Amino acid sequence: METIRVGILGLGTVGNGVVNLLHGQGGLISRRLGAEVVVHRIADRSMYAKNKDEKIKDVADIPRERLGTDADALIDDPEVDIVAELIGGLGDARRHILRAIGKRKPVVTANKAVLAVHGEELFAAAERAGCPLGFEASVAGGIPIVRNLREGFAADRIESLAGILNGTCNYILSEMTEKGAGFEETLKRAQELGYAEADPAFDVDGVDASHKIAILANLAYGTPVDVSAFMVEGIRSIEAADIAFARELGCRIKLIAMARETEGKLDIRVHPAMLPERHPLSQVGGVYNAVAVSGLHAGPQVFIGRGAGSAATASAVVGDIIEVARWLRSGSQSRLPAAAFLPGQRRPLEILTAREMRSSYYVRFAALDRPGVLSRIAGAFGAHDISLMNVIQKGRAGREDHVPLVLLTHEAVEQDMRNALGEIARLDVVRPEYAMIRVVPDGMAFV
Amino acid sequence: METIRVGILGLGTVGNGVVNLLHGQGGLISRRLGAEVVVHRIADRSMYAKNKDEKIKDVADIPRERLGTDADALIDDPEVDIVAELIGGLGDARRHILRAIGKRKPVVTANKAVLAVHGEELFAAAERAGCPLGFEASVAGGIPIVRNLREGFAADRIESLAGILNGTCNYILSEMTEKGAGFEETLKRAQELGYAEADPAFDVDGVDASHKIAILANLAYGTPVDVSAFMVEGIRSIEAADIAFARELGCRIKLIAMARETEGKLDIRVHPAMLPERHPLSQVGGVYNAVAVSGLHAGPQVFIGRGAGSAATASAVVGDIIEVARWLRSGSQSRLPAAAFLPGQRRPLEILTAREMRSSYYVRFAALDRPGVLSRIAGAFGAHDISLMNVIQKGRAGREDHVPLVLLTHEAVEQDMRNALGEIARLDVVRPEYAMIRVVPDGMAFV
Repeated sequence: METIRVGILGLGTVGNGVVNLLHGQGGLISRRLGAEVVVHRIADRSMYAKNKDEKIKDVADIPRERLGTDADALIDDPEVDIVAELIGGLGDARRHILRAIGKRKPVVTANKAVLAVHGEELFAAAERAGCPLGFEASVAGGIPIVRNLREGFAADRIESLAGILNGTCNYILSEMTEKGAGFEETLKRAQELGYAEADPAFDVDGVDASHKIAILANLAYGTPVDVSAFMVEGIRSIEAADIAFARELGCRIKLIAMARETEGKLDIRVHPAMLPERHPLSQVGGVYNAVAVSGLHAGPQVFIGRGAGSAATASAVVGDIIEVARWLRSGSQSRLPAAAFLPGQRRPLEILTAREMRSSYYVRFAALDRPGVLSRIAGAFGAHDISLMNVIQKGRAGREDHVPLVLLTHEAVEQDMRNALGEIARLDVVRPEYAMIRVVPDGMAFV
Repeated sequence: METIRVGILGLGTVGNGVVNLLHGQGGLISRRLGAEVVVHRIADRSMYAKNKDEKIKDVADIPRERLGTDADALIDDPEVDIVAELIGGLGDARRHILRAIGKRKPVVTANKAVLAVHGEELFAAAERAGCPLGFEASVAGGIPIVRNLREGFAADRIESLAGILNGTCNYILSEMTEKGAGFEETLKRAQELGYAEADPAFDVDGVDASHKIAILANLAYGTPVDVSAFMVEGIRSIEAADIAFARELGCRIKLIAMARETEGKLDIRVHPAMLPERHPLSQVGGVYNAVAVSGLHAGPQVFIGRGAGSAATASAVVGDIIEVARWLRSGSQSRLPAAAFLPGQRRPLEILTAREMRSSYYVRFAALDRPGVLSRIAGAFGAHDISLMNVIQKGRAGREDHVPLVLLTHEAVEQDMRNALGEIARLDVVRPEYAMIRVVPDGMAFV
């Protein structure tokens, strides 16, 4: 039986998962592929430290001379058929991927950052070389969303994408919902449990989710996406009070990354959103990820699964390795464009500015409990062309005390909303601080 | 730009959907594929009747001489690059697919029956010819489950498959749940709305779902599956009372098709099941389909979407056409085995008999409301090694009246359960009729 030799760059969580999977499921993989897939060589920056305790050698059954720190030597090794780039990050990863592609060596990567930031360069290089570039694992871990956008939906016009793409945020929001706790305290617990990093900014500020939705939007709409050019809001501002109100309104709060084409522009964003409990994404809790895709012909689809973790990510990485191995064995040029659209057929879409976006809104003010207050607030919204759908005023208070006043609006333009909120916050009947969360309408219920 | 010519066999619901999709999304498809995909020729048994109202010609823009009734001529036409078999059924479809493969012409089909019954022959023929056979549309319409089992999970050991694969049954059960109505009355309404056929047996007796799970199990476990060799129960016996009790127990009743490997045997079955409301499949209502797949490494995943309908099915058919077109254009032999495992690597698994299966059970008796009754019933279960998890007795009655007695068991062997039920039904304290529904435990909650 033919042997396909994989070189692994980076032996962290995912790298170890890949080694374990290839070891544990080798027989099954051969029965499907018709070739054996083996880890031929591993390069890791801190290989020597790791090597001292002999763990790698035990696990991977690889001779010591093929364990090293030199990524270039691994890529250049003529015995390495496929390069798995699992180091993450930007600079080195980009360089390694380009070097491998330059040698027409197929690359499989789990690195969302390098694809979100340098995707255009990498896609173009892969196309020029006629060399497959697999990156299923870069978005939503084990969920096969990249494959489905590149292949399953190849015939369809994608109307919208919306996902829960960051497990850390989903865990924190689920815990806040379950326990009624605040953000800071829940974040601390998530850090203790290993669900959040010591520096949580990348996750809780929405950066990770923005990288992932940029990749998916690129595939869905055939356009480069500048990750610095769209609205990204994290979950730090979500308060227990809003989670409680959401529940009362039959909603959950999730960090949603979404993209859709509207009038020739790309509406792409990451922000917390209220979803009705009927919405399939609202039911996805804990560290799970989910992606909802709506095709003009296929209709709405939802994919739910593990978005991270060593084993789930490795399953996606090795799935890509097998696909690439099939291409290698067929001896032909890859005809599946890395970016779903052929290079000459990609058309840059202008990104909708935050101010042009349309949403429905949940707003919570602390307002005086006096006659005429609601009328002034509603009047300010009305003056900006924003109509209210629902108003909840909680409790009764003395003339000078504030009570929560919650409003749900119909769809409105973000700029109008900001103007209205600015005006209202200056009224003497509300406190200047308010909470604002966008609402995802019940457009994808499967009931 | 190169042109790929599709010949369409069968211009029914799906055939028309494919013609419309290729017409409507031709530009988008070219941007992804780098070739134009056109409907070159159509054969339909009742073409002449259809042709008289000129509809086909208007829609498909195909010269009249390429619309006919002769399937063989279409397959043999050297200008047809890909054959789309959309006539359904067994005999003719099998013959057409084999004829096309015999000419090394790739085939795409939406026909679950022919694959479930003649799959082994068709897979083997496709492998021998090195010719792709696409059948994404045959199971769960637009949901990309075939692609994911063949490719996404190629690296993983699949632990279990469970799906809502028949939209008619799901619609009926959802309506019964929503409205509290009985089966017959709901079926009638479903027929009026076009969600059920005039002869509903194929759907409501579970046959359609059994074909689909047979195909999925074949792909997941690399084994031929005899569709007549496993337990298939439909939904005719589900009563409004059981749906109401399910709700009380925090469950929904769904027609579930499932498969898993247990101790070297294939546990495959179709039957109504109670699912906890936390289970992601329990939330899928109406005519939607859903498939839950659990991979040893990937973990649990759920895919939800439209399982039928002209447009959704066409989206899957044309997705396959594009994949096949990529292979055609690469000029190489297909390396993706039609049945996910290579022909020589498939290993027939023995199918677990219904009597060997293990399940938890919901049972509803009509029992006399007298002291000692529960003890006799529980004793009979205990004598057959079945332990009870929960007992609900409803209402009070006179000494000679019957009240509903609902029991939930822990996992037990089906044969033991049948023996116990047979004995209990002969007791003078219960009516001989009872309801029995298997329970799916809460193993796949994503919360």
